[in-house]
Amino acid sequence: MQLGFAGMGIMGSAMARNLLRAGHAVSVWNRTASKCEPLAAEGAAVAASLPELARAADIVFICVADTPDVEAVLFGPQGLVEGLGPGKIVVDHSTISPEATVAFAERVNALGAAYLDAPVSGGETGAINATLTIMVGGEAAVLEQVRPYLAAMGRSIVHCGPQGSGQKVKAVNQVICALNILATSEGMLLAKRMGLDLEVVHRVVSSGAAASWMLSNLGPKMIANDFAPGFMIKLQAKDLRIAAASIEALGGGLPGTALTHRLFDEAVAAGLGEQGTQGLVNLLGWNEA
Amino acid sequence: MQLGFAGMGIMGSAMARNLLRAGHAVSVWNRTASKCEPLAAEGAAVAASLPELARAADIVFICVADTPDVEAVLFGPQGLVEGLGPGKIVVDHSTISPEATVAFAERVNALGAAYLDAPVSGGETGAINATLTIMVGGEAAVLEQVRPYLAAMGRSIVHCGPQGSGQKVKAVNQVICALNILATSEGMLLAKRMGLDLEVVHRVVSSGAAASWMLSNLGPKMIANDFAPGFMIKLQAKDLRIAAASIEALGGGLPGTALTHRLFDEAVAAGLGEQGTQGLVNLLGWNEA
Repeated sequence: MQLGFAGMGIMGSAMARNLLRAGHAVSVWNRTASKCEPLAAEGAAVAASLPELARAADIVFICVADTPDVEAVLFGPQGLVEGLGPGKIVVDHSTISPEATVAFAERVNALGAAYLDAPVSGGETGAINATLTIMVGGEAAVLEQVRPYLAAMGRSIVHCGPQGSGQKVKAVNQVICALNILATSEGMLLAKRMGLDLEVVHRVVSSGAAASWMLSNLGPKMIANDFAPGFMIKLQAKDLRIAAASIEALGGGLPGTALTHRLFDEAVAAGLGEQGTQGLVNLLGWNEA
Repeated sequence: MQLGFAGMGIMGSAMARNLLRAGHAVSVWNRTASKCEPLAAEGAAVAASLPELARAADIVFICVADTPDVEAVLFGPQGLVEGLGPGKIVVDHSTISPEATVAFAERVNALGAAYLDAPVSGGETGAINATLTIMVGGEAAVLEQVRPYLAAMGRSIVHCGPQGSGQKVKAVNQVICALNILATSEGMLLAKRMGLDLEVVHRVVSSGAAASWMLSNLGPKMIANDFAPGFMIKLQAKDLRIAAASIEALGGGLPGTALTHRLFDEAVAAGLGEQGTQGLVNLLGWNEA
């Protein structure tokens, strides 16, 4: 089985590397070709174009930033579709619009190729350690064909429903994450303003009903004034924009998500976009507290 | 050592029962005296008045609903202060205003008695099972005198700082809890509106960065349309009112907490006050989704 991988960013390169290390034949492509070099040094073939990548591969994985990027990779001039046909499978790991995903899948299916949306959760660490959660939308039989390769990149591979369902579950995930980040930010900021011992507060509140992954993982970074990115504010803002569009289409009325969407956009506008999501406390005045 | 306990509500009666079962001599008091009967049947003495309770006890525990209730128990006509004096200790387990707590503590200290604020987290289950987290503000030496009795009621007993600090940490805890409840509510509601399999969504998002105590504990109740109270909406609203007053005094600017305060107040106004906090989804339109 020949594999192709389009998108050698932080996530894509780590995921493609895990496919290589599992012994698979992998061709890679990136818009900026130089980013393929580390993978080439580890044994990947480098495709000169997306049509070539699609022609060489039975399964093409995509991991790029946003909805227009997936659209360009698939359907742009010199896009994957020029090399896609019956028997081939496209697996999109990007986090993009569920509605656009359904349209993309239909266009790919019309060429005789299969399509799965398969956004991931777990960040750079999860990508490197192959411990990602992979949320899959599409036909269960296609997922079973692809599962051995997904298992080289992630630990939990969950079939969520028909095409677009992986993106929908990812949107739900990001809505919850964003509000839990805000919870951690406001709680820690209030503790700081109250003059409390932050280590003690963090230990106490983490032990009970206020516990969350975000409190456990981001709280200590806030206390240490460590704003290096695990997951960047600008990407959380993008994911909230995608969720907000879905929410709007369903009638709106999720006030907490509307608030976090506005706050993460404000954080980007304030120049905090490259900080980790714990940097949301900086928008709220952490260093004036 | 003679113990007194004022307030035989859900929490107070369970906590006093654990003191009795640990072999301590306990006198109890409640505004509605009939609520003392179950404890009397298990061996507690019933005090005819708060001054009598204070005179009979070396340590008086209080567990009532709100700031004015604690004020009335301490300083009202026929209040505890009429029986307090040197060598006695007051321990307030209620969740009330940190600022009022400091004032109450000063007035009690002026009589020669010691004062600890010691709000609890863990709900009715924690009170029954003696697994409460107890957040203590006041002198460390006084806490050490009281610790053996607190250990009969809770599992984690944490000294948070001077008088008022227990209430401050509790306010931080409730700010985080409220936003995590909103996160769970909006995430599950979005999943329902999207037509996703709620069991699958809950399992997937609980396994990663969206994980929280609230998602694990309240998500399944939402799916089951079980709105019976673990912790009532009206009490969460009261705790947010207390936190909001502290935040306001510190300059404001916590938009997520302001939003949850407004939403929990709206839920009470909508008649949802006696539901568990998972009932916040009902304010957002759970059964129209």
